[in-house]
Amino acid sequence: MKEIIAVIRMNKTNDTKKALIKAGAAGFTAFKVMGRGKLVNDESIIMERKNRLLKLAGDEEADTEVLIDGFLTGERLFPRRLFTVLAKDEDVKGIVDAIIAANRTENNVGDGKIFVLPVMDAIRVRTGETGETAV
Amino acid sequence: MKEIIAVIRMNKTNDTKKALIKAGAAGFTAFKVMGRGKLVNDESIIMERKNRLLKLAGDEEADTEVLIDGFLTGERLFPRRLFTVLAKDEDVKGIVDAIIAANRTENNVGDGKIFVLPVMDAIRVRTGETGETAV
Amino acid sequence: MKEIIAVIRMNKTNDTKKALIKAGAAGFTAFKVMGRGKLVNDESIIMERKNRLLKLAGDEEADTEVLIDGFLTGERLFPRRLFTVLAKDEDVKGIVDAIIAANRTENNVGDGKIFVLPVMDAIRVRTGETGETAV
Repeated sequence: MKEIIAVIRMNKTNDTKKALIKAGAAGFTAFKVMGRGKLVNDESIIMERKNRLLKLAGDEEADTEVLIDGFLTGERLFPRRLFTVLAKDEDVKGIVDAIIAANRTENNVGDGKIFVLPVMDAIRVRTGETGETAV
Repeated sequence: MKEIIAVIRMNKTNDTKKALIKAGAAGFTAFKVMGRGKLVNDESIIMERKNRLLKLAGDEEADTEVLIDGFLTGERLFPRRLFTVLAKDEDVKGIVDAIIAANRTENNVGDGKIFVLPVMDAIRVRTGETGETAV
Repeated sequence: MKEIIAVIRMNKTNDTKKALIKAGAAGFTAFKVMGRGKLVNDESIIMERKNRLLKLAGDEEADTEVLIDGFLTGERLFPRRLFTVLAKDEDVKGIVDAIIAANRTENNVGDGKIFVLPVMDAIRVRTGETGETAV
């Protein structure tokens, strides 16, 4: 058994939920966190990302550039959706692939990250079933 | 050391908290998540559960049936309380049993699920103690 | 790879965030939980802690003593900030030390606790990279 943790964009919550159900996820939870991904030190990558994000954001907000700078320097955390999914070993690949398919955009920073943690036991409260039967 | 994660009904929060303290849990956290458990494909089980849930819900809300259908098809997530408990290996069974005793109803779907994850180290910030001493 | 979980005081959120970035944490999330640490049964330790907390709290609130009693008996949960940090094995010590440095006060109960959990795989959604490359 494994616990799959996915930290994704807020606006991908619904797509991810549907993808998990379609992939046969046995049960999952979702909640809002503040977060940030890896920082880069390479100035040219930072400028390329900044320009891409500015283009994506458009001109609607006066402080867009400030927000993007905060994101790129790590000074700001951003709202993210965190999913936890309990899965049998044999289902991990299918569920991870489904999360990727629902969340990958066209090479934009911030698509998210997925972690797989070992789970030693699972227990269904109603029946007392344990192990893979309880997943 | 283990991390015990329990996803339970919102209205069992207080009972679970008391059960954890009585069971000697060394420390725990609780927060609200949206979640859902395992879906079933067996139509007769679905109908049996739907009737049971309708009976439990009574007639107060016009959209009870819609809510229950959403729950049974997986299209809706429901508010759940997630507890995380840090435990020494020898205390896991007692804590899991305490969570079950506080949350089991009369065979109603949705009583919750418990997972046990391995923990490699624990550190108490105040003293710098590590391992089981820090639990 | 490891997942570092830290449960700390709410008012240490910003210091912890800065410490994580300075320590080179590759990515992290933060969210509010309700929680409590280990309970003690030793009456003299309880009185010593109560007096220390009363002194810290001052006289502003009439119910300070009730709050502190609730904290010491475990009947009340308190708001805490929970951080999760994904880290390469070689970075765990540096990140744990940074969290301790940002959160340790002068021997006051409640500085927080840190857990280290094993992570079997990490996947970057944008690129599909896996393992330590994805951290």
